[in-house]
Amino acid sequence: MGGARSGKSRYAETIASHCDQEVIYIATAKVLDKEMEARVERHIDDRPAHWKTIEEPIALAESLENHAASNKVILVDCLTMWVNNLLMQEDDILLTAEINKLLQVIPKLTGTVIFVSNEVGMGIMPLGELTRKFVDESGRLHQQLAQSIDNVLLIVAGLAMEVKGKKPF
Amino acid sequence: MGGARSGKSRYAETIASHCDQEVIYIATAKVLDKEMEARVERHIDDRPAHWKTIEEPIALAESLENHAASNKVILVDCLTMWVNNLLMQEDDILLTAEINKLLQVIPKLTGTVIFVSNEVGMGIMPLGELTRKFVDESGRLHQQLAQSIDNVLLIVAGLAMEVKGKKPF
Amino acid sequence: MGGARSGKSRYAETIASHCDQEVIYIATAKVLDKEMEARVERHIDDRPAHWKTIEEPIALAESLENHAASNKVILVDCLTMWVNNLLMQEDDILLTAEINKLLQVIPKLTGTVIFVSNEVGMGIMPLGELTRKFVDESGRLHQQLAQSIDNVLLIVAGLAMEVKGKKPF
Repeated sequence: MGGARSGKSRYAETIASHCDQEVIYIATAKVLDKEMEARVERHIDDRPAHWKTIEEPIALAESLENHAASNKVILVDCLTMWVNNLLMQEDDILLTAEINKLLQVIPKLTGTVIFVSNEVGMGIMPLGELTRKFVDESGRLHQQLAQSIDNVLLIVAGLAMEVKGKKPF
Repeated sequence: MGGARSGKSRYAETIASHCDQEVIYIATAKVLDKEMEARVERHIDDRPAHWKTIEEPIALAESLENHAASNKVILVDCLTMWVNNLLMQEDDILLTAEINKLLQVIPKLTGTVIFVSNEVGMGIMPLGELTRKFVDESGRLHQQLAQSIDNVLLIVAGLAMEVKGKKPF
Repeated sequence: MGGARSGKSRYAETIASHCDQEVIYIATAKVLDKEMEARVERHIDDRPAHWKTIEEPIALAESLENHAASNKVILVDCLTMWVNNLLMQEDDILLTAEINKLLQVIPKLTGTVIFVSNEVGMGIMPLGELTRKFVDESGRLHQQLAQSIDNVLLIVAGLAMEVKGKKPF
Protein backbone atom coordinates (compact mmCIF):
# COMPACT_ATOMS: atom_id res chain seq x y z
CA MET A 1 0.00 0.00 0.00
CA GLY A 2 1.10 3.53 -0.60
CA GLY A 3 0.21 6.86 -2.12
CA ALA A 4 0.57 7.82 -5.75
CA ARG A 5 4.27 8.01 -6.70
CA SER A 6 5.27 6.61 -3.32
CA GLY A 7 7.54 4.02 -4.93
CA LYS A 8 5.19 1.14 -4.08
CA SER A 9 5.49 -0.54 -7.51
CA ARG A 10 9.27 -0.34 -7.42
CA TYR A 11 9.35 -1.68 -3.87
CA ALA A 12 7.13 -4.60 -4.86
CA GLU A 13 9.37 -5.31 -7.86
CA THR A 14 12.41 -5.33 -5.60
CA ILE A 15 10.73 -7.88 -3.31
CA ALA A 16 9.84 -10.02 -6.32
CA SER A 17 13.42 -9.85 -7.66
CA HIS A 18 14.83 -10.96 -4.31
CA CYS A 19 12.73 -14.14 -4.37
CA ASP A 20 14.96 -15.79 -7.03
CA GLN A 21 11.98 -17.44 -8.67
CA GLU A 22 10.09 -17.02 -11.90
CA VAL A 23 8.08 -13.79 -11.74
CA ILE A 24 4.70 -13.32 -13.36
CA TYR A 25 3.60 -9.73 -13.49
CA ILE A 26 -0.16 -9.15 -13.72
CA ALA A 27 -0.84 -5.63 -14.97
CA THR A 28 -4.41 -4.48 -14.35
CA ALA A 29 -4.07 -1.15 -16.15
CA LYS A 30 -6.21 -0.45 -19.19
CA VAL A 31 -4.47 1.97 -21.50
CA LEU A 32 -6.93 4.78 -22.18
CA ASP A 33 -4.82 7.70 -23.37
CA LYS A 34 -1.32 8.71 -24.53
CA GLU A 35 -0.18 9.87 -21.07
CA MET A 36 -1.20 6.52 -19.61
CA GLU A 37 0.55 4.70 -22.46
CA ALA A 38 3.81 6.49 -21.70
CA ARG A 39 3.39 5.69 -18.01
CA VAL A 40 2.78 1.98 -18.68
CA GLU A 41 5.75 1.76 -21.04
CA ARG A 42 8.01 3.42 -18.51
CA HIS A 43 6.87 0.81 -15.99
CA ILE A 44 7.59 -2.04 -18.43
CA ASP A 45 11.06 -0.67 -19.17
CA ASP A 46 11.76 -0.66 -15.44
CA ARG A 47 11.09 -4.40 -15.11
CA PRO A 48 13.55 -7.23 -15.83
CA ALA A 49 13.13 -8.50 -19.38
CA HIS A 50 12.68 -12.15 -18.35
CA TRP A 51 9.54 -11.45 -16.31
CA LYS A 52 6.34 -12.63 -17.89
CA THR A 53 3.74 -9.89 -18.16
CA ILE A 54 0.01 -10.64 -18.28
CA GLU A 55 -2.57 -7.92 -18.83
CA GLU A 56 -5.74 -8.63 -16.93
CA PRO A 57 -8.02 -5.68 -16.17
CA ILE A 58 -11.05 -7.66 -14.89
CA ALA A 59 -10.73 -11.43 -14.28
CA LEU A 60 -7.98 -11.15 -11.69
CA ALA A 61 -9.06 -14.07 -9.48
CA GLU A 62 -9.13 -16.41 -12.48
CA SER A 63 -5.74 -15.20 -13.64
CA LEU A 64 -4.26 -15.79 -10.18
CA GLU A 65 -5.73 -19.29 -10.03
CA ASN A 66 -4.28 -20.10 -13.44
CA HIS A 67 -0.77 -18.83 -12.78
CA ALA A 68 -0.02 -19.30 -9.10
CA ALA A 69 2.44 -22.08 -8.32
CA SER A 70 4.65 -22.90 -5.36
CA ASN A 71 7.80 -22.03 -7.30
CA LYS A 72 6.55 -18.76 -8.73
CA VAL A 73 6.09 -15.18 -7.62
CA ILE A 74 3.07 -13.28 -8.85
CA LEU A 75 3.05 -9.50 -8.65
CA VAL A 76 -0.30 -7.77 -9.15
CA ASP A 77 0.00 -4.06 -10.00
CA CYS A 78 -2.39 -2.71 -8.94
CA LEU A 79 -5.59 -3.50 -7.07
CA THR A 80 -6.99 0.04 -7.10
CA MET A 81 -6.76 0.10 -10.89
CA TRP A 82 -8.59 -3.23 -10.96
CA VAL A 83 -11.36 -1.87 -8.69
CA ASN A 84 -11.55 1.15 -10.98
CA ASN A 85 -11.89 -1.09 -14.06
CA LEU A 86 -14.69 -3.04 -12.36
CA LEU A 87 -16.53 0.18 -11.47
CA MET A 88 -16.25 1.33 -15.09
CA GLN A 89 -18.28 -1.74 -16.12
CA GLU A 90 -21.24 -0.20 -14.24
CA ASP A 91 -22.34 -3.65 -13.12
CA ASP A 92 -22.60 -3.99 -9.34
CA ILE A 93 -23.18 -7.74 -9.51
CA LEU A 94 -20.00 -8.25 -11.50
CA LEU A 95 -18.10 -5.96 -9.10
CA THR A 96 -19.19 -7.89 -6.02
CA ALA A 97 -18.68 -11.24 -7.71
CA GLU A 98 -15.13 -10.47 -8.85
CA ILE A 99 -14.08 -9.08 -5.46
CA ASN A 100 -15.56 -12.12 -3.68
CA LYS A 101 -13.81 -14.44 -6.12
CA LEU A 102 -10.50 -12.75 -5.35
CA LEU A 103 -11.00 -13.03 -1.59
CA GLN A 104 -11.89 -16.71 -1.93
CA VAL A 105 -9.00 -17.54 -4.22
CA ILE A 106 -6.28 -15.94 -2.12
CA PRO A 107 -6.16 -18.47 0.75
CA LYS A 108 -5.86 -21.31 -1.80
CA LEU A 109 -2.90 -19.86 -3.70
CA THR A 110 0.51 -21.48 -3.36
CA GLY A 111 3.69 -19.49 -3.86
CA THR A 112 4.28 -15.82 -3.21
CA VAL A 113 1.73 -13.26 -4.31
CA ILE A 114 2.45 -9.54 -3.99
CA PHE A 115 -0.34 -6.99 -4.36
CA VAL A 116 0.30 -3.33 -5.05
CA SER A 117 -2.50 -0.97 -4.08
CA ASN A 118 -3.10 2.74 -3.54
CA GLU A 119 -4.04 4.34 -0.28
CA VAL A 120 -6.70 6.74 -1.56
CA GLY A 121 -8.64 7.78 1.55
CA MET A 122 -6.28 10.12 3.42
CA GLY A 123 -7.16 13.31 1.56
CA ILE A 124 -10.23 15.48 1.07
CA MET A 125 -12.61 13.43 -1.02
CA PRO A 126 -13.85 15.21 -4.16
CA LEU A 127 -17.62 15.21 -4.61
CA GLY A 128 -19.32 12.56 -6.70
CA GLU A 129 -20.97 9.23 -6.02
CA LEU A 130 -18.53 7.31 -8.20
CA THR A 131 -15.52 8.68 -6.32
CA ARG A 132 -17.11 7.76 -3.01
CA LYS A 133 -17.90 4.29 -4.30
CA PHE A 134 -14.33 3.88 -5.51
CA VAL A 135 -12.96 4.84 -2.09
CA ASP A 136 -15.52 2.57 -0.38
CA GLU A 137 -14.79 -0.46 -2.51
CA SER A 138 -11.02 0.02 -2.42
CA GLY A 139 -11.02 0.53 1.33
CA ARG A 140 -13.26 -2.46 2.01
CA LEU A 141 -11.08 -4.63 -0.22
CA HIS A 142 -7.93 -3.49 1.59
CA GLN A 143 -9.47 -4.34 4.96
CA GLN A 144 -10.63 -7.78 3.89
CA LEU A 145 -7.41 -8.58 2.07
CA ALA A 146 -5.27 -7.46 5.01
CA GLN A 147 -7.00 -10.10 7.16
CA SER A 148 -6.01 -12.96 4.90
CA ILE A 149 -2.44 -12.08 3.96
CA ASP A 150 0.78 -12.27 6.00
CA ASN A 151 2.36 -8.91 5.33
CA VAL A 152 1.00 -5.42 4.82
CA LEU A 153 3.44 -2.58 4.22
CA LEU A 154 2.80 1.14 3.87
CA ILE A 155 5.26 2.69 1.42
CA VAL A 156 6.33 6.27 2.11
CA ALA A 157 9.03 7.95 0.00
CA GLY A 158 10.02 4.55 -1.39
CA LEU A 159 10.55 3.11 2.10
CA ALA A 160 8.40 0.50 3.84
CA MET A 161 6.59 0.93 7.14
CA GLU A 162 5.30 -2.27 8.75
CA VAL A 163 1.54 -2.46 9.10
CA LYS A 164 1.32 -6.25 9.46
CA GLY A 165 4.24 -8.68 9.63
CA LYS A 166 7.89 -7.86 9.00
CA LYS A 167 9.33 -6.11 5.98
CA PRO A 168 11.51 -8.43 3.89
CA PHE A 169 14.65 -6.20 3.97
CA MET B 1 -7.02 8.22 12.96
CA GLY B 2 -7.25 6.84 9.49
CA GLY B 3 -8.37 7.49 5.95
CA ALA B 4 -11.89 7.12 4.61
CA ARG B 5 -12.90 3.43 4.62
CA SER B 6 -9.72 2.48 6.44
CA GLY B 7 -11.67 0.49 9.01
CA LYS B 8 -11.07 3.03 11.79
CA SER B 9 -14.67 2.92 13.08
CA ARG B 10 -14.66 -0.84 13.20
CA TYR B 11 -11.28 -0.88 14.93
CA ALA B 12 -12.53 1.58 17.53
CA GLU B 13 -15.64 -0.54 18.09
CA THR B 14 -13.48 -3.60 18.60
CA ILE B 15 -11.45 -1.77 21.26
CA ALA B 16 -14.65 -0.65 22.95
CA SER B 17 -16.05 -4.20 22.94
CA HIS B 18 -12.88 -5.56 24.52
CA CYS B 19 -13.22 -3.20 27.50
CA ASP B 20 -16.11 -5.23 29.01
CA GLN B 21 -17.87 -2.12 30.22
CA GLU B 22 -20.98 -0.22 29.29
CA VAL B 23 -20.40 1.51 25.94
CA ILE B 24 -21.86 4.88 25.02
CA TYR B 25 -21.57 5.68 21.37
CA ILE B 26 -21.64 9.38 20.47
CA ALA B 27 -22.48 9.79 16.79
CA THR B 28 -21.63 13.23 15.42
CA ALA B 29 -23.08 12.67 11.96
CA LYS B 30 -25.97 14.79 10.75
CA VAL B 31 -28.03 12.88 8.25
CA LEU B 32 -28.34 15.09 5.18
CA ASP B 33 -29.25 12.77 2.33
CA LYS B 34 -30.36 9.22 1.46
CA GLU B 35 -26.84 7.95 0.81
CA MET B 36 -25.74 9.22 4.19
CA GLU B 37 -28.80 7.67 5.84
CA ALA B 38 -27.94 4.28 4.41
CA ARG B 39 -24.36 4.69 5.56
CA VAL B 40 -25.40 5.61 9.12
CA GLU B 41 -27.85 2.71 9.31
CA ARG B 42 -25.20 0.28 8.12
CA HIS B 43 -22.95 1.58 10.89
CA ILE B 44 -25.72 1.15 13.51
CA ASP B 45 -26.38 -2.41 12.36
CA ASP B 46 -22.69 -3.15 12.81
CA ARG B 47 -22.77 -2.17 16.48
CA PRO B 48 -23.88 -4.37 19.41
CA ALA B 49 -27.56 -3.79 20.24
CA HIS B 50 -26.91 -3.07 23.95
CA TRP B 51 -24.71 -0.04 23.21
CA LYS B 52 -26.35 3.26 23.97
CA THR B 53 -26.23 5.66 21.01
CA ILE B 54 -26.32 9.43 21.44
CA GLU B 55 -26.51 11.77 18.47
CA GLU B 56 -24.61 14.95 19.14
CA PRO B 57 -23.48 16.97 16.12
CA ILE B 58 -22.33 20.14 17.98
CA ALA B 59 -22.17 20.11 21.81
CA LEU B 60 -19.62 17.31 22.06
CA ALA B 61 -17.73 18.58 25.10
CA GLU B 62 -20.96 18.90 27.08
CA SER B 63 -22.07 15.45 26.03
CA LEU B 64 -18.74 13.96 27.11
CA GLU B 65 -18.93 15.71 30.48
CA ASN B 66 -22.45 14.41 31.02
CA HIS B 67 -21.73 10.79 30.12
CA ALA B 68 -18.14 10.01 31.05
CA ALA B 69 -17.74 7.78 34.09
CA SER B 70 -14.94 5.60 35.39
CA ASN B 71 -16.87 2.41 34.59
CA LYS B 72 -17.90 3.40 31.08
CA VAL B 73 -16.40 3.52 27.63
CA ILE B 74 -17.33 6.41 25.36
CA LEU B 75 -16.71 6.12 21.64
CA VAL B 76 -16.94 9.33 19.59
CA ASP B 77 -17.38 8.72 15.86
CA CYS B 78 -16.11 10.97 14.43
CA LEU B 79 -14.27 14.20 15.18
CA THR B 80 -13.86 15.31 11.57
CA MET B 81 -17.64 15.14 11.10
CA TRP B 82 -18.02 17.25 14.25
CA VAL B 83 -15.54 19.85 12.92
CA ASN B 84 -17.48 19.83 9.67
CA ASN B 85 -20.79 20.41 11.50
CA LEU B 86 -19.24 23.32 13.39
CA LEU B 87 -17.94 24.88 10.17
CA MET B 88 -21.42 24.56 8.64
CA GLN B 89 -22.73 26.87 11.41
CA GLU B 90 -20.60 29.64 9.84
CA ASP B 91 -19.84 31.01 13.30
CA ASP B 92 -16.12 31.23 14.03
CA ILE B 93 -16.67 32.14 17.68
CA LEU B 94 -18.80 29.02 18.22
CA LEU B 95 -16.22 26.92 16.39
CA THR B 96 -13.33 28.09 18.55
CA ALA B 97 -15.38 27.91 21.73
CA GLU B 98 -16.53 24.32 21.11
CA ILE B 99 -13.04 23.12 20.21
CA ASN B 100 -11.56 24.79 23.29
CA LYS B 101 -14.29 23.29 25.46
CA LEU B 102 -13.43 19.83 24.15
CA LEU B 103 -9.71 20.29 24.79
CA GLN B 104 -10.42 21.50 28.33
CA VAL B 105 -12.88 18.72 29.13
CA ILE B 106 -10.69 15.83 28.00
CA PRO B 107 -8.12 15.87 30.83
CA LYS B 108 -10.97 15.84 33.38
CA LEU B 109 -12.77 12.81 31.96
CA THR B 110 -12.72 9.55 33.88
CA GLY B 111 -13.08 6.24 32.12
CA THR B 112 -12.04 5.32 28.61
CA VAL B 113 -12.77 7.67 25.73
CA ILE B 114 -12.07 6.64 22.15
CA PHE B 115 -12.08 9.21 19.36
CA VAL B 116 -12.39 8.28 15.71
CA SER B 117 -11.10 10.86 13.26
CA ASN B 118 -10.14 11.14 9.60
CA GLU B 119 -6.69 11.89 8.29
CA VAL B 120 -7.63 14.36 5.54
CA GLY B 121 -4.38 16.15 4.72
CA MET B 122 -2.33 13.57 2.80
CA GLY B 123 -3.81 14.21 -0.64
CA ILE B 124 -3.98 17.08 -3.08
CA MET B 125 -6.22 19.67 -1.49
CA PRO B 126 -9.11 20.82 -3.70
CA LEU B 127 -9.46 24.60 -4.06
CA GLY B 128 -11.78 26.56 -1.81
CA GLU B 129 -11.42 28.47 1.45
CA LEU B 130 -13.87 26.21 3.31
CA THR B 131 -11.92 23.08 2.40
CA ARG B 132 -8.69 24.68 3.54
CA LYS B 133 -10.33 25.79 6.78
CA PHE B 134 -11.67 22.28 7.34
CA VAL B 135 -8.20 20.77 6.87
CA ASP B 136 -6.67 23.47 9.10
CA GLU B 137 -9.15 23.04 11.92
CA SER B 138 -9.10 19.24 11.77
CA GLY B 139 -5.32 19.16 11.69
CA ARG B 140 -4.92 21.61 14.54
CA LEU B 141 -7.44 19.65 16.61
CA HIS B 142 -5.59 16.39 15.94
CA GLN B 143 -2.29 17.93 17.04
CA GLN B 144 -3.70 19.39 20.24
CA LEU B 145 -5.68 16.28 21.08
CA ALA B 146 -2.70 14.01 20.48
CA GLN B 147 -0.80 15.89 23.19
CA SER B 148 -3.39 15.19 25.85
CA ILE B 149 -4.34 11.57 25.16
CA ASP B 150 -2.42 8.35 25.84
CA ASN B 151 -2.76 6.51 22.54
CA VAL B 152 -2.83 7.57 18.93
CA LEU B 153 -3.19 4.93 16.24
CA LEU B 154 -3.11 5.27 12.48
CA ILE B 155 -5.43 2.74 10.86
CA VAL B 156 -4.40 1.37 7.47
CA ALA B 157 -6.39 -1.42 5.81
CA GLY B 158 -8.17 -2.11 9.09
CA LEU B 159 -4.88 -2.58 10.95
CA ALA B 160 -3.37 -0.26 13.56
CA MET B 161 0.01 1.44 13.36
CA GLU B 162 1.29 2.96 16.61
CA VAL B 163 1.74 6.72 16.52
CA LYS B 164 1.67 7.22 20.31
CA GLY B 165 1.49 4.53 22.98
CA LYS B 166 0.86 0.85 22.38
CA LYS B 167 -1.98 -0.70 20.42
CA PRO B 168 -4.37 -2.63 22.64
CA PHE B 169 -4.13 -5.93 20.71
CA MET C 1 6.96 14.30 5.68
CA GLY C 2 3.37 14.73 6.65
CA GLY C 3 -0.06 15.82 5.53
CA ALA C 4 -1.35 19.37 5.45
CA ARG C 5 -1.69 20.71 9.02
CA SER C 6 -0.06 17.59 10.42
CA GLY C 7 2.33 19.65 12.53
CA LYS C 8 5.34 18.78 10.36
CA SER C 9 6.73 22.35 10.32
CA ARG C 10 6.43 22.67 14.07
CA TYR C 11 8.03 19.27 14.57
CA ALA C 12 10.94 20.25 12.31
CA GLU C 13 11.34 23.52 14.22
CA THR C 14 11.46 21.62 17.50
CA ILE C 15 14.24 19.38 16.13
CA ALA C 16 16.15 22.46 14.95
CA SER C 17 15.77 24.16 18.36
CA HIS C 18 17.11 21.08 20.14
CA CYS C 19 20.33 21.18 18.10
CA ASP C 20 21.69 24.20 20.06
CA GLN C 21 23.28 25.65 16.94
CA GLU C 22 22.64 28.62 14.70
CA VAL C 23 19.50 27.94 12.66
CA ILE C 24 18.99 29.13 9.11
CA TYR C 25 15.44 28.85 7.93
CA ILE C 26 14.95 28.61 4.17
CA ALA C 27 11.37 29.48 3.27
CA THR C 28 10.36 28.36 -0.22
CA ALA C 29 6.88 29.92 -0.16
CA LYS C 30 6.02 32.64 -2.64
CA VAL C 31 3.36 34.88 -1.19
CA LEU C 32 0.58 35.07 -3.77
CA ASP C 33 -2.51 36.24 -1.85
CA LYS C 34 -3.72 37.65 1.47
CA GLU C 35 -4.60 34.26 2.97
CA MET C 36 -1.13 33.01 2.17
CA GLU C 37 0.41 36.17 3.62
CA ALA C 38 -1.40 35.62 6.91
CA ARG C 39 -0.29 31.98 6.91
CA VAL C 40 3.37 32.88 6.31
CA GLU C 41 3.30 35.59 9.00
CA ARG C 42 1.79 33.18 11.49
CA HIS C 43 4.63 30.78 10.70
CA ILE C 44 7.27 33.51 11.19
CA ASP C 45 5.73 34.51 14.54
CA ASP C 46 6.00 30.88 15.63
CA ARG C 47 9.76 30.81 15.07
CA PRO C 48 12.45 32.02 17.49
CA ALA C 49 13.44 35.64 16.72
CA HIS C 50 17.17 34.85 16.45
CA TRP C 51 16.74 32.42 13.55
CA LYS C 52 17.89 33.75 10.23
CA THR C 53 15.20 33.49 7.54
CA ILE C 54 16.05 33.27 3.85
CA GLU C 55 13.36 33.31 1.18
CA GLU C 56 14.32 31.15 -1.75
CA PRO C 57 11.51 29.88 -3.98
CA ILE C 58 13.68 28.46 -6.82
CA ALA C 59 17.47 28.22 -6.35
CA LEU C 60 17.35 25.92 -3.33
CA ALA C 61 20.46 23.88 -4.11
CA GLU C 62 22.54 27.02 -4.47
CA SER C 63 21.15 28.45 -1.26
CA LEU C 64 21.97 25.23 0.61
CA GLU C 65 25.51 25.22 -0.76
CA ASN C 66 26.01 28.82 0.30
CA HIS C 67 24.69 28.43 3.84
CA ALA C 68 25.43 24.91 5.01
CA ALA C 69 28.20 24.64 7.59
CA SER C 70 29.19 22.01 10.13
CA ASN C 71 28.08 24.20 13.03
CA LYS C 72 24.74 25.22 11.58
CA VAL C 73 21.28 23.77 11.18
CA ILE C 74 19.38 24.49 8.00
CA LEU C 75 15.63 23.97 7.93
CA VAL C 76 13.95 23.95 4.50
CA ASP C 77 10.19 24.52 4.65
CA CYS C 78 8.97 23.08 2.38
CA LEU C 79 10.01 20.96 -0.60
CA THR C 80 6.53 20.54 -2.07
CA MET C 81 6.16 24.32 -2.27
CA TRP C 82 9.52 24.47 -4.02
CA VAL C 83 8.42 21.80 -6.54
CA ASN C 84 5.24 23.79 -7.05
CA ASN C 85 7.22 27.01 -7.69
CA LEU C 86 9.38 25.18 -10.23
CA LEU C 87 6.30 23.81 -12.03
CA MET C 88 4.84 27.32 -12.17
CA GLN C 89 7.89 28.40 -14.26
CA GLU C 90 6.59 26.06 -17.00
CA ASP C 91 10.15 25.14 -17.92
CA ASP C 92 10.81 21.39 -17.75
CA ILE C 93 14.55 21.82 -18.29
CA LEU C 94 14.80 24.18 -15.31
CA LEU C 95 12.67 21.81 -13.21
CA THR C 96 14.87 18.81 -13.91
CA ALA C 97 18.06 20.82 -13.53
CA GLU C 98 17.10 22.26 -10.15
CA ILE C 99 15.97 18.90 -8.75
CA ASN C 100 19.18 17.24 -9.96
CA LYS C 101 21.24 20.05 -8.46
CA LEU C 102 19.55 19.51 -5.11
CA LEU C 103 20.13 15.75 -5.20
CA GLN C 104 23.80 16.30 -6.06
CA VAL C 105 24.35 18.96 -3.42
CA ILE C 106 22.84 17.03 -0.49
CA PRO C 107 25.61 14.42 -0.02
CA LYS C 108 28.21 17.22 0.06
CA LEU C 109 26.54 19.31 2.77
CA THR C 110 28.06 19.48 6.21
CA GLY C 111 25.97 20.16 9.30
CA THR C 112 22.34 19.26 9.88
CA VAL C 113 19.77 19.84 7.17
CA ILE C 114 16.07 19.29 7.84
CA PHE C 115 13.58 19.13 4.98
CA VAL C 116 9.86 19.58 5.48
CA SER C 117 7.65 18.12 2.76
CA ASN C 118 4.03 17.22 2.15
CA GLU C 119 2.72 13.75 1.56
CA VAL C 120 0.28 14.52 -1.28
CA GLY C 121 -0.44 11.14 -2.87
CA MET C 122 -2.69 9.36 -0.37
CA GLY C 123 -5.99 10.84 -1.50
CA ILE C 124 -8.09 10.80 -4.65
CA MET C 125 -6.15 12.77 -7.22
CA PRO C 126 -8.16 15.60 -8.83
CA LEU C 127 -8.10 15.63 -12.63
CA GLY C 128 -5.58 17.74 -14.51
CA GLU C 129 -2.16 17.16 -16.01
CA LEU C 130 -0.48 19.77 -13.78
CA THR C 131 -1.78 18.11 -10.62
CA ARG C 132 -0.54 14.74 -11.81
CA LYS C 133 2.84 16.23 -12.68
CA PHE C 134 3.04 17.84 -9.26
CA VAL C 135 2.33 14.53 -7.52
CA ASP C 136 4.79 12.74 -9.83
CA GLU C 137 7.64 15.18 -9.29
CA SER C 138 7.05 15.46 -5.54
CA GLY C 139 6.84 11.71 -5.14
CA ARG C 140 9.93 11.04 -7.24
CA LEU C 141 11.86 13.67 -5.28
CA HIS C 142 10.79 12.13 -1.97
CA GLN C 143 11.95 8.69 -3.10
CA GLN C 144 15.34 9.92 -4.31
CA LEU C 145 15.88 12.14 -1.30
CA ALA C 146 14.95 9.36 1.13
CA GLN C 147 17.81 7.27 -0.29
CA SER C 148 20.45 9.86 0.50
CA ILE C 149 19.39 11.13 3.93
CA ASP C 150 19.66 9.46 7.35
CA ASN C 151 16.19 10.00 8.78
CA VAL C 152 12.72 10.05 7.31
CA LEU C 153 9.76 10.68 9.61
CA LEU C 154 6.05 10.65 8.86
CA ILE C 155 4.24 13.21 11.00
CA VAL C 156 0.70 12.35 12.06
CA ALA C 157 -1.22 14.60 14.48
CA GLY C 158 2.03 16.37 15.39
CA LEU C 159 3.72 13.09 16.32
CA ALA C 160 6.53 11.36 14.43
CA MET C 161 6.44 7.85 13.00
CA GLU C 162 9.79 6.39 11.97
CA VAL C 163 10.11 5.62 8.27
CA LYS C 164 13.92 5.58 8.17
CA GLY C 165 16.29 5.94 11.13
CA LYS C 166 15.32 6.89 14.65
CA LYS C 167 13.29 9.89 15.75
CA PRO C 168 15.35 12.39 17.72
CA PHE C 169 13.05 12.47 20.79
